[in-house]
Amino acid sequence: MGVNEAIKAATDPEVVKDIRETWEMVSGKKKNGVALMIKLFDMEEKAIPFFKRMGDLSDPWNNRKLNGHGLTLWYGVQNFVDQLDNADDLEDVARKFSVQHTARGVGSIEFGWIKAPLAEFLREKLGDKCTDRHVESWGKLIDVIRAALTEA
Amino acid sequence: MGVNEAIKAATDPEVVKDIRETWEMVSGKKKNGVALMIKLFDMEEKAIPFFKRMGDLSDPWNNRKLNGHGLTLWYGVQNFVDQLDNADDLEDVARKFSVQHTARGVGSIEFGWIKAPLAEFLREKLGDKCTDRHVESWGKLIDVIRAALTEA
Repeated sequence: MGVNEAIKAATDPEVVKDIRETWEMVSGKKKNGVALMIKLFDMEEKAIPFFKRMGDLSDPWNNRKLNGHGLTLWYGVQNFVDQLDNADDLEDVARKFSVQHTARGVGSIEFGWIKAPLAEFLREKLGDKCTDRHVESWGKLIDVIRAALTEA
Repeated sequence: MGVNEAIKAATDPEVVKDIRETWEMVSGKKKNGVALMIKLFDMEEKAIPFFKRMGDLSDPWNNRKLNGHGLTLWYGVQNFVDQLDNADDLEDVARKFSVQHTARGVGSIEFGWIKAPLAEFLREKLGDKCTDRHVESWGKLIDVIRAALTEA
């Protein structure tokens, strides 16, 4: 899927509503970005080698490098969620994001590994308030980044 | 100056107050990150080669790569401003930030080039509400990142 097509899907008003109403429920807790990273490492062990810089991840809540990454990640998500109102801005931040990630060997496939942990994270935090449709909508935002990574 | 010393200076309650009361006045306009980058390029031309990826910067408001960078930058500032309550979190995000920047050849000296454009940006946006003390307080936050870059 190309970037334009992915953006069209992610900026559909219903999709944006799904993303924002769930984001509002998890965005305020700043350590949630760390929790999401831990879920990634638990569910997709193949992602761990991409974070060698962090060293020993056996006690993740006490890993300072993971803490810095997780905190920062949460502002990255806020950035994407905010840009859903404007297709050009969304594209520009997705392409900016993709530059940093391709430099670290993270392509479209690797970035897709976040989908299942993200779904699990949302279901755990939101319980019944997180429906399959919410998860699918978040998947569409992930696909914007994946499309940008493909074209990077 | 070491990271610990820089953090101590930046997390002084008066400094935090200065930073936050001015940040609140500029944070809501998401293109301000682009404006700050343009000010950097205008005032510190030597910074331009570090952004070769962006290509032609003669019409900066229409440069999509600069737009993506400037938008994202604003969330980076929000991250630092939020972490001023917790010295460890501030240190962790500063060290995370420094990894990406040293990889691009941006060290403590180069990052310091943002100080004058940031001061000018604040004075332009805030007029009389921006005092020398506000500018100095922002300088202390910049110095946290510079210290982390020195130790990276």
